[in-house]
Amino acid sequence: MSGNTLGTLFTVTNFGESHGPAIGCVIDGCPPGMELSEADIQIELDRRKPGTSRHVTQRQEADQVEILSGVFEGKTTGTPIALLIRNTDQRSKDYGNIVETFRPGHADYTYWQKYGIRDYRGGGRSSARLTAPTVAAGAVAKKWLRERMGIETRGFMSALGEIPIPFVAWEHVRENPFFAPNAEIVPRLEEYMDALRKDGDSIGARIGVMATGVPAGLGEPLYDRLDADIAKAMMGINAVKGVEIGAGFASVAQRGSVHGDEMTPEGFAANNAGGVLGGISSGQDITVSIAIKPTSSIRTPRESIDKVGHSATVETFGRHDPCVGIRATPIAEALLALVLIDHALRHRAQNGDVVTTTPHIAAHIAK
Amino acid sequence: MSGNTLGTLFTVTNFGESHGPAIGCVIDGCPPGMELSEADIQIELDRRKPGTSRHVTQRQEADQVEILSGVFEGKTTGTPIALLIRNTDQRSKDYGNIVETFRPGHADYTYWQKYGIRDYRGGGRSSARLTAPTVAAGAVAKKWLRERMGIETRGFMSALGEIPIPFVAWEHVRENPFFAPNAEIVPRLEEYMDALRKDGDSIGARIGVMATGVPAGLGEPLYDRLDADIAKAMMGINAVKGVEIGAGFASVAQRGSVHGDEMTPEGFAANNAGGVLGGISSGQDITVSIAIKPTSSIRTPRESIDKVGHSATVETFGRHDPCVGIRATPIAEALLALVLIDHALRHRAQNGDVVTTTPHIAAHIAK
Amino acid sequence: MSGNTLGTLFTVTNFGESHGPAIGCVIDGCPPGMELSEADIQIELDRRKPGTSRHVTQRQEADQVEILSGVFEGKTTGTPIALLIRNTDQRSKDYGNIVETFRPGHADYTYWQKYGIRDYRGGGRSSARLTAPTVAAGAVAKKWLRERMGIETRGFMSALGEIPIPFVAWEHVRENPFFAPNAEIVPRLEEYMDALRKDGDSIGARIGVMATGVPAGLGEPLYDRLDADIAKAMMGINAVKGVEIGAGFASVAQRGSVHGDEMTPEGFAANNAGGVLGGISSGQDITVSIAIKPTSSIRTPRESIDKVGHSATVETFGRHDPCVGIRATPIAEALLALVLIDHALRHRAQNGDVVTTTPHIAAHIAK
Amino acid sequence: MSGNTLGTLFTVTNFGESHGPAIGCVIDGCPPGMELSEADIQIELDRRKPGTSRHVTQRQEADQVEILSGVFEGKTTGTPIALLIRNTDQRSKDYGNIVETFRPGHADYTYWQKYGIRDYRGGGRSSARLTAPTVAAGAVAKKWLRERMGIETRGFMSALGEIPIPFVAWEHVRENPFFAPNAEIVPRLEEYMDALRKDGDSIGARIGVMATGVPAGLGEPLYDRLDADIAKAMMGINAVKGVEIGAGFASVAQRGSVHGDEMTPEGFAANNAGGVLGGISSGQDITVSIAIKPTSSIRTPRESIDKVGHSATVETFGRHDPCVGIRATPIAEALLALVLIDHALRHRAQNGDVVTTTPHIAAHIAK
Repeated sequence: MSGNTLGTLFTVTNFGESHGPAIGCVIDGCPPGMELSEADIQIELDRRKPGTSRHVTQRQEADQVEILSGVFEGKTTGTPIALLIRNTDQRSKDYGNIVETFRPGHADYTYWQKYGIRDYRGGGRSSARLTAPTVAAGAVAKKWLRERMGIETRGFMSALGEIPIPFVAWEHVRENPFFAPNAEIVPRLEEYMDALRKDGDSIGARIGVMATGVPAGLGEPLYDRLDADIAKAMMGINAVKGVEIGAGFASVAQRGSVHGDEMTPEGFAANNAGGVLGGISSGQDITVSIAIKPTSSIRTPRESIDKVGHSATVETFGRHDPCVGIRATPIAEALLALVLIDHALRHRAQNGDVVTTTPHIAAHIAK
Repeated sequence: MSGNTLGTLFTVTNFGESHGPAIGCVIDGCPPGMELSEADIQIELDRRKPGTSRHVTQRQEADQVEILSGVFEGKTTGTPIALLIRNTDQRSKDYGNIVETFRPGHADYTYWQKYGIRDYRGGGRSSARLTAPTVAAGAVAKKWLRERMGIETRGFMSALGEIPIPFVAWEHVRENPFFAPNAEIVPRLEEYMDALRKDGDSIGARIGVMATGVPAGLGEPLYDRLDADIAKAMMGINAVKGVEIGAGFASVAQRGSVHGDEMTPEGFAANNAGGVLGGISSGQDITVSIAIKPTSSIRTPRESIDKVGHSATVETFGRHDPCVGIRATPIAEALLALVLIDHALRHRAQNGDVVTTTPHIAAHIAK
Repeated sequence: MSGNTLGTLFTVTNFGESHGPAIGCVIDGCPPGMELSEADIQIELDRRKPGTSRHVTQRQEADQVEILSGVFEGKTTGTPIALLIRNTDQRSKDYGNIVETFRPGHADYTYWQKYGIRDYRGGGRSSARLTAPTVAAGAVAKKWLRERMGIETRGFMSALGEIPIPFVAWEHVRENPFFAPNAEIVPRLEEYMDALRKDGDSIGARIGVMATGVPAGLGEPLYDRLDADIAKAMMGINAVKGVEIGAGFASVAQRGSVHGDEMTPEGFAANNAGGVLGGISSGQDITVSIAIKPTSSIRTPRESIDKVGHSATVETFGRHDPCVGIRATPIAEALLALVLIDHALRHRAQNGDVVTTTPHIAAHIAK
Repeated sequence: MSGNTLGTLFTVTNFGESHGPAIGCVIDGCPPGMELSEADIQIELDRRKPGTSRHVTQRQEADQVEILSGVFEGKTTGTPIALLIRNTDQRSKDYGNIVETFRPGHADYTYWQKYGIRDYRGGGRSSARLTAPTVAAGAVAKKWLRERMGIETRGFMSALGEIPIPFVAWEHVRENPFFAPNAEIVPRLEEYMDALRKDGDSIGARIGVMATGVPAGLGEPLYDRLDADIAKAMMGINAVKGVEIGAGFASVAQRGSVHGDEMTPEGFAANNAGGVLGGISSGQDITVSIAIKPTSSIRTPRESIDKVGHSATVETFGRHDPCVGIRATPIAEALLALVLIDHALRHRAQNGDVVTTTPHIAAHIAK
């Protein structure tokens, strides 16, 4: 049973390989009547696309999206929205050296074991390139959340390797290729990346992502809790190894008298919860943090085996991100938006429009 | 859309409230022909049940399970296995003081906002008591994984509040109420808990859980990756705020030349991956770590609001775990087992029995 | 992958065997805030239960339902509603003769082939007894549809064997054990059944079921069309071999100028559509007709084989309905209600409340 | 919640509109390692495509399929197979007259009511053109069923309007545009259709579809019975109003001593069951019959209303099939194949390869 569909009511079915003819997705369940154009989607794809700075892969892909269905006279019709992105820069010769051997840290070995056949060109299906359709679908979700519910999802880099990035302001995020919320630290990040590239090595990163304007009431316990679905979506991003909500791992050493966010008639006094209590949104901001491992494709030679189990040494040439975390921010935002729209529709199915029962902590779902 | 079913092929549908007549679950998709008795399930329920030491809630529940269906002449028939646990110790008077106010850190407020109605007796549906049916279902999954695939899932406490618990040996785990893999540290943990109870406060914990014997090939990318489904299951446990696989958050500061596990003809040289590459199991051990927040129900008075939005002070009396993490180990094991059996069946659906293609890193799924 | 869950948003997970300790179901997704008691459910179970006339099985089952969860202070809470019915009359000795042989027309052979193990007591899981939990869940759906949307689902017998039953009036349906909408024909039906029992044989029947008050707009094409889901639900009833919507098989010989229902400002001029156009409800009444095969358990000896493939003669003694169609009416009503509530919630998820765009053909979904 | 995905393990997600840029689908869950080319799919699309005789719509569409993903070096990889068909003959001016009025018997009114917005060009999403992606996906399913399990699905026309078509031989089916299994009757069918076109009217049809080589054991009761899923798939075809399995509606007047198929060591003595007992395949041929209503788009003027509820007269010009049943045979075959492959994978998930327990009625699932 393949698992290429995300969501239950607002579903995204992803297809394609890194070096096949095209990648894309089908969105099913988008509410009708929303204005939607290719430009609405392109703006998010452009934030993720490769080749935008010297710190990311130099593969040249315009990532131009075509809407194939589901939009009529500029509006969504409630029927499936198919999005197509043609692959254009498929220099597959770069990847010839990995046909017979498995790159350490990569999915080469596991795809081979699972399917008995593997598209080795650029990582095939396991390539981070397949986050592009997710980002495209996320753009649709973001637009609906913003226009109908006043919800915004935004992300930023909070650490690059061992360098923590103190949050200064959201405005900084869009002004540097790292999505760092801190303009001052950018030169240091650039130096760090330049040294790393020279070493032929790669590094991890930490990304923060949050949503504001989320009403109380979203989430479907016992199992499809909002935080559980966020954790799944985030851990499903290529290279992610950890997910925290709110206080996260810091809550291990917290006392109950510190962790539990007190409430006042004006709202919550803190946000250790990260916006989720009992698996349901509380009306606080949703705050998430994710750990991204270093890119596995590095120029440094590494020990591995080949298909028949013999020792082999692998060096990866070709075009790779030395820190996949750099382009992860728009991806994490997209996934948070996709989880939220799915839960907004799920909530509406069973409960209809939210009726705010506590006057001072307002929370609405409008169509 | 309610989300009370876990899994896609081996599904668990959970029902019940803390103080209603009964709790339980229906397992659908369990393969036929496996010997199964109530004793097989009871053993896991007994590991989780309350009242077993002075460090956990004193609620008296035998948590006696009854198999209502799906087993004939001592064997599973492939039809739904319904498990029933009657609630017996429902002293609901303990909970009267939370009818009108919302306990900080609890799901009181969010359930109220979501459904407009809330069973306030003992937390109702949001009570950690509802992990019992999950543990019962997990016992069935564990048995199948052990007998048919040679997979074991085991957990332990790795930190209690600020006290790290160095791993010594699995044998220690079952000999103390903390599931600590370190007998020597137990007196210190007991002292710590005694002091905490005296303070009327609570504390967080960190739990490690792992699976051995997992063949390569389990996991369904792009979205239903094995690590993603593990993250969902773990984050879905009451009070969990963070999930790591393998190196987890430590991978942020790792270099690619360190993180990517090298392979040799004898196997992997390390396990930063935590047993998952590209969302598919690699044949390494699956290693997971989760952060559990401190119990929100504490005797210390806290600020909150009531249903009409006025200020209120909340003190929680009654029977509560001062560290919900203490009983979390069998729950985390159960969930890891439930994810693994689901993915084992999903793999088999599409691929049939795994054909091991690399001779030296063997990986099998047998029925 | 077992298929014991019906529906997508209002789901019913069915468990139990004919002669096991209990049967029941878990309803997940019922909207909160609806008054619900065991009496609301019992009334529908009593319409279906055995032993109510000499024309049906004489098995004595009170079919007493217990609500285990999901209702608090008399109202649904939006969490799973578990319903339990204990089996009380399990005279399993009646069924000893079918342990080693397969009854023609029965599921004995196919369950054996599928699972390799089979609960032979009273048909085990394949018994029509398992329609009781479906009827119980249908009672909950019916109540919600009636109270929140003004929808009624009703059925009747339209033919018993070769005897067509002309529709006279709904009032007649509840006054005879056949659910015949025609009091005058009842003596003839009774005679017919008496003769049949004397012959040791059984007979088929045709049941009509319809829904009134259904708004336009329910149904999720392309594949989850309303008529498609109705067909699935109906064909899923034990012994059903055919399903028609509207004109059904008569439409084969109709011309387009006759079949297509003309519209006027006052409404549709006919109902060949059976209330569904393009897979979406039209606001006309939903009309369905189903064919039910004769009971396979008959006293007449029949040729078959045993488990090792040898010839065997099978005679079925014990307690059986000579026409399973007699008790099928409440089952068909329940399933139509379950499909409609599921589609009402699905529609609401994506579209919110229906906005009636044509003033004269009003159609509303109210919570 | 949109319902554009068919199946649970072998899923088909359909997208597109009659006059949009493209139609297509994404298949998820196809087992890896099967040879697959565009030619394998094109052959089935060509059987369904318009313009192949004077008795069907004259719209010119090559229905050329492009495989966008999921196939590498000529073999399926186990990842999603995206299929794209560009629309080329979109003379949308033909359809201008239905922008403001609802055609009787069409989905115009119900789409408008459901979504509040409607792509009126050629029926938009409700067009029978959208069966093309289903047929394309069915070609993949057919190939796998044939090569791995020895299952064949085949269909034929069994009645055109009031003309029954006695079955003579399968060879005849592919030699006439009606898919009639009877060469002798073809001239009469042609005359009938010519007269109908002259009248500006349309007619219904009955289609038979069957599968041979199906092993015992496929089907997932209680609700996802094989017959139930077949009924859903068939009723989901545009214009279908009735579905029968085996004896179908004839079973209403059958006695149990006639209907129940006796078994002998050599196999079943009859096939009233249509190959399904208790919702599980029996090893007999699967036999299905469906009723297709007459096309609603006819030249004869008909009464209707417009969007504001006023009376209107509708005449449909443009290119339409006077009997949609003529092209329905390959569609029904495709859907039967899609249901069977889905159930074959579902069975394998829970049970592994079928173990034949009765030696003389062999039934295998091989990968």
